[in-house]
Amino acid sequence: MREIRVELGERSYSIFVGAGILAEADRLFGPLAQTPVLIVTDEGVARAQEANLNRLLESLNRRVVRVAPGEESKSMAGFSSLIDRLVEFEQDTVALLAFGGGVVGDLTGFAAACYKRGVPWIQVPTTLLAQVDASVGGKCAINHPRAKNLVGAFHQPRMVIADVETLHTLPARELRSGLAEVIKHGVIADAAFFDRVEQTIGRALQLDLEVLEDYVTTSCRIKAAVVGEDERDITGQRAALNYGHTLGHAIELAAHFRYTHGEAIAIGMACAGDLSVRLGLLNPVDAGRIEAVLQSAGLPTRAADLEANEVLAAMNLDKKFLQGANRFVIAREIGAVELRSAIPRTLIEEVLADRLAG
Amino acid sequence: MREIRVELGERSYSIFVGAGILAEADRLFGPLAQTPVLIVTDEGVARAQEANLNRLLESLNRRVVRVAPGEESKSMAGFSSLIDRLVEFEQDTVALLAFGGGVVGDLTGFAAACYKRGVPWIQVPTTLLAQVDASVGGKCAINHPRAKNLVGAFHQPRMVIADVETLHTLPARELRSGLAEVIKHGVIADAAFFDRVEQTIGRALQLDLEVLEDYVTTSCRIKAAVVGEDERDITGQRAALNYGHTLGHAIELAAHFRYTHGEAIAIGMACAGDLSVRLGLLNPVDAGRIEAVLQSAGLPTRAADLEANEVLAAMNLDKKFLQGANRFVIAREIGAVELRSAIPRTLIEEVLADRLAG
Repeated sequence: MREIRVELGERSYSIFVGAGILAEADRLFGPLAQTPVLIVTDEGVARAQEANLNRLLESLNRRVVRVAPGEESKSMAGFSSLIDRLVEFEQDTVALLAFGGGVVGDLTGFAAACYKRGVPWIQVPTTLLAQVDASVGGKCAINHPRAKNLVGAFHQPRMVIADVETLHTLPARELRSGLAEVIKHGVIADAAFFDRVEQTIGRALQLDLEVLEDYVTTSCRIKAAVVGEDERDITGQRAALNYGHTLGHAIELAAHFRYTHGEAIAIGMACAGDLSVRLGLLNPVDAGRIEAVLQSAGLPTRAADLEANEVLAAMNLDKKFLQGANRFVIAREIGAVELRSAIPRTLIEEVLADRLAG
Repeated sequence: MREIRVELGERSYSIFVGAGILAEADRLFGPLAQTPVLIVTDEGVARAQEANLNRLLESLNRRVVRVAPGEESKSMAGFSSLIDRLVEFEQDTVALLAFGGGVVGDLTGFAAACYKRGVPWIQVPTTLLAQVDASVGGKCAINHPRAKNLVGAFHQPRMVIADVETLHTLPARELRSGLAEVIKHGVIADAAFFDRVEQTIGRALQLDLEVLEDYVTTSCRIKAAVVGEDERDITGQRAALNYGHTLGHAIELAAHFRYTHGEAIAIGMACAGDLSVRLGLLNPVDAGRIEAVLQSAGLPTRAADLEANEVLAAMNLDKKFLQGANRFVIAREIGAVELRSAIPRTLIEEVLADRLAG
């Protein structure tokens, strides 16, 4: 088992990563093991991870809430209903535990942020995406019909337990989606890790636990270093994590979520690579390596079913287009990125024309 | 105009107190004067303070949301609807402004805490209670049908503009309620201020602006000093502000809110005084002075319509009864309090029997 510290002053916490470590959950909980815990999960995860869930429920004063899988649970109604369940639980002190993927983590974290103005929560991510991304940063939110993640908080968990064995029950498409963020972490901050991913991506797709443990550990370490500098996303350093996301989010929107987040980000990263090359920063060979590893992970790097114009229109709605001025994270080389503003629209159009339907 | 600084590191802000200072609001807003502002008020305040509200709305990019007066607006439905109004406002950057009493401040502050994970807000309290209490501390919350203030956040405003002239349109009963917290601030921290309140309480009831400015300024200064030591109510220092509140909240609950918050707190303070005397700390003469000034403010110090047993039952539901062990703020003298745990139940019963119906 490995332990990564996320250093955020009095809000610091540990991420435990390993295979089968949920068996030791009660020991890892530390002082929280005595606290009544409301476990939030979704129906799919509850079925797939029944043994782990039952083990978590063996202790006294634990109760489980099963929400419907999917973004719909991350709504004002879902939030209100989770608060009702907390009230029904009738405990003087309480902690929440998110057992599932990003939706469960977002909903649970936001409820923990607001209930009694903040109660502790533990994150047990069961998707690769949640293990490598949502584990770090404390961002949690619910959706509004007009915009994703519009209502939320920064509320750091007390600990994260990322058991890579839970990934065995993850649908293959979701595993690949998580790999997009893993590759991103190599590109933005760690060339040696990127090299390792190139070598081991096939084993990751075969669910090799050692490889997955490396991916989760290194990803969390990279993201923790960035978030430690910019907890509340103010100084712009946290923006590095948005590599591939400016176009990726627009692709998600324009495709009406036909692509998973990871798939859209993979296409967005391929576009960001092209843009970096055209701006004279990134070496075309390195851009090719990024594209190749995305493809090895089974991720798309083109979207022939999307019009460039649709993506441009969606981009104007994106919050990253602060005050109308675009901002892109651009790769200088594998392992180093920088923030660039006011990229000429024609350049963006050329890149999109190349990777999407004209 | 006076300025009180609430020192909370990067969340520090100023409270401006004066008569007629809303006329200068745009200058006080500083950088926020250029930001689109959604003003939240209630229908009663909007009518009573029409001229001030219209002046605030003169600037570009301001819009007003009027909610129904009363606790019902501080609900999940009220929160959700305010978020909808923020979305309809369709601004890239936005600030909220709470123009009203405690309900408006709580709802607005909580929406500002959550919208886009936190946007700036300005507090313009128009009741004495909100000026002397809610102005400091950043606590904001909505109610749950089963408990008040159950869902909330700590979200400091960017500034508070407390214009004592707005108190001219305040119903007399609400003015008296605010005075209960003013008197409390003297009791817990400032004997000289308590002396001044004894001398000037009659003028305050006549809405003497100079006296009210002193009350608001000194109250904010006292509360700011306490909150500065214990922003998130963790170390227990903030507990001093709960003088009279342990029994006061129980009285509010047991009386099903027949008493205003201030009235219940006044009875609670009289009880806390008795308890302090019986514990051998407070001088009976000083307890008498506290009761006398509460009475001069037109506040009740007894509740013959309430059974002691009902209040004891309500107390067991109160969050201040941490883990079943009671905690009381006890006065040592006028201007100094301390926290005492595990006060014998018989002592509490005796005090209640004396001030309520046996």
